[in-house]
Amino acid sequence: MVAVAGLPYPIMVAPGAIERLADVVRAVGDRNRVVVLTDVTVGRLYGHRVDRLLQAFGARVISMEMDEQRKTRETWANLTDVLLEQQFGRDTTIVALGGGVVGDIVGFVAATYMRGVPVVQVPTTLLAMVDASVGGKTGVDTPAGKNLVGAFHQPSAVVIDPLLLETLPPEHIRAGFAEILKHGIVADEEYFERASAFANAWSALRFAELTPLIERSVEIKADIVSRDERESGVRKVLNFGHTIGHAIEAATNYRTLHGEAVAMGLVTEARMAERIGIASGGTSSRIERVCRAVGLPTAMPAIPADTLIGFTRSDKKARGGRVEYALPTRIGQMAGADRGWGIPVDDTTVREALSV
Amino acid sequence: MVAVAGLPYPIMVAPGAIERLADVVRAVGDRNRVVVLTDVTVGRLYGHRVDRLLQAFGARVISMEMDEQRKTRETWANLTDVLLEQQFGRDTTIVALGGGVVGDIVGFVAATYMRGVPVVQVPTTLLAMVDASVGGKTGVDTPAGKNLVGAFHQPSAVVIDPLLLETLPPEHIRAGFAEILKHGIVADEEYFERASAFANAWSALRFAELTPLIERSVEIKADIVSRDERESGVRKVLNFGHTIGHAIEAATNYRTLHGEAVAMGLVTEARMAERIGIASGGTSSRIERVCRAVGLPTAMPAIPADTLIGFTRSDKKARGGRVEYALPTRIGQMAGADRGWGIPVDDTTVREALSV
Repeated sequence: MVAVAGLPYPIMVAPGAIERLADVVRAVGDRNRVVVLTDVTVGRLYGHRVDRLLQAFGARVISMEMDEQRKTRETWANLTDVLLEQQFGRDTTIVALGGGVVGDIVGFVAATYMRGVPVVQVPTTLLAMVDASVGGKTGVDTPAGKNLVGAFHQPSAVVIDPLLLETLPPEHIRAGFAEILKHGIVADEEYFERASAFANAWSALRFAELTPLIERSVEIKADIVSRDERESGVRKVLNFGHTIGHAIEAATNYRTLHGEAVAMGLVTEARMAERIGIASGGTSSRIERVCRAVGLPTAMPAIPADTLIGFTRSDKKARGGRVEYALPTRIGQMAGADRGWGIPVDDTTVREALSV
Repeated sequence: MVAVAGLPYPIMVAPGAIERLADVVRAVGDRNRVVVLTDVTVGRLYGHRVDRLLQAFGARVISMEMDEQRKTRETWANLTDVLLEQQFGRDTTIVALGGGVVGDIVGFVAATYMRGVPVVQVPTTLLAMVDASVGGKTGVDTPAGKNLVGAFHQPSAVVIDPLLLETLPPEHIRAGFAEILKHGIVADEEYFERASAFANAWSALRFAELTPLIERSVEIKADIVSRDERESGVRKVLNFGHTIGHAIEAATNYRTLHGEAVAMGLVTEARMAERIGIASGGTSSRIERVCRAVGLPTAMPAIPADTLIGFTRSDKKARGGRVEYALPTRIGQMAGADRGWGIPVDDTTVREALSV
């Protein structure tokens, strides 16, 4: 159990944690009806097991096609309508079983179903375990960009079982490392080093061994979000790598894995921070080295800089049309504590950082 | 200014209050971009004036067809897309100008736009002034029922100007009285009497004279919702009249005015309360008398009881498939303080109360 002062919900991180799902769900509301929403792939892999684990609740497992291309208002509406057809009321606990996309969509369903019902997040990808499942950000994409519609809806509990990673394709493990590295960069140099060591040897690791990394990432994330639930201040540091990352995802029509786009974002934005004299020299190359070791891409795909810059402007983080970045001063520390953690960067600098 | 302890946002009630809209908007966020969302009718009546009042912000007034039939996820998505096209960012204050439908839809747009931006509610109907604009309930209907998708999103401020009622059709003034009467029934017998006196003379009144009634209604509503923001307890009393009321609206495909449906609901549900021995005799006939005096319908439309009962089951207030009602013990007091304010009522009783 990760204990973070100020975080009002339990986060369980342990190999085999999923076996205790029924206890967690009971603690959320013991008279509630329970429904598990998952995507088709995860449903095929874990649907039966979760069904059995929640048998006492007469829980139903509902699978639907959910992926980055289908992270839309339509999917959200379809899931909602299925719950309505099956007459789920306000006394419903929703279990979101899957990766980040499932957590975001299903979290948004829970946030808006009859004005909000509890959700238990059960992430099945490394990315979702270390990042998306904690903090209450939910939402879907629109044609104009990523996560532009959504809500803050804190989970009632998070159950993280690293053994579920055994069925995850290797590129998704890699993608999860991007957020792990980000957590080290924004808050904890020692952790960045520890993750780097794993990164160098990661092909050999067994999944239970990721537990301490996941725990530390969840701690860092939970600590930051508990201090700033609505992202009006310090939570913005978690956007490091994500302004460029989101632009890459949008420009490639969401065919780039989120973690891969973030890796390119981490390197590019660190480079920007160096160029404007905020970050100490070598920061970006150190990040780049570790990303390479994990097998994460660091070179930008062939997208015109102006296309990417265009997408950054429609980013939620744009204020009055001006894009602000969360940037590091060095590995382990972010800049801008005195100015709301947002650093404006001119287009020329962005263009230079992109064209290296 | 209505001052309610525990309510974290200002509610201004005064003839001419709208002239101070710019000050209110500035207090919400003085560097924010401002956009006014309204329906076509209200936009035609007040769009220019509000545009002028908010000139200093370069505010845009955007009108869209919004009515009970169009209180849908599609309208919500369309409004969102218009804001995205015009590149409104997270630093946006939305002004919801209109009746209850506009407040609900635009409130939900604000609740979910980039995971939530501030909204200032400027109600233009009596119903919205005394009820919908306060308390943070936002949402849209789905084919399965009313307000089934939405969020709790407290307004940052509410500006109530009774002079705006001058352009409201008389049947909408009548409809607003249904909620005024409800507030008296759930919390304040003296206020119920005072409203009844107005009701008897209402055709002669001038709109500024409604100010003290609106103030008291807002006080009652705000006091209750500030004690129970998420409707887990006492806030349920405000659902009095609404379980049957919503069923009538759904069964008539939302062609009945909300206030008219609620009036029928108040009378029918009070009758149920008498039948099961919770309310003192004469409660329902006293409510019926006042509704008639205002010109509100009290006789049920020709809808089969089982159809209505079917709709009550898909109501959000159904728990585990069982419908619970908020019911009065007498004018001024609600039942069920010791059991979460929800009273289960068997179908036979509902049928009897409907068939009087």
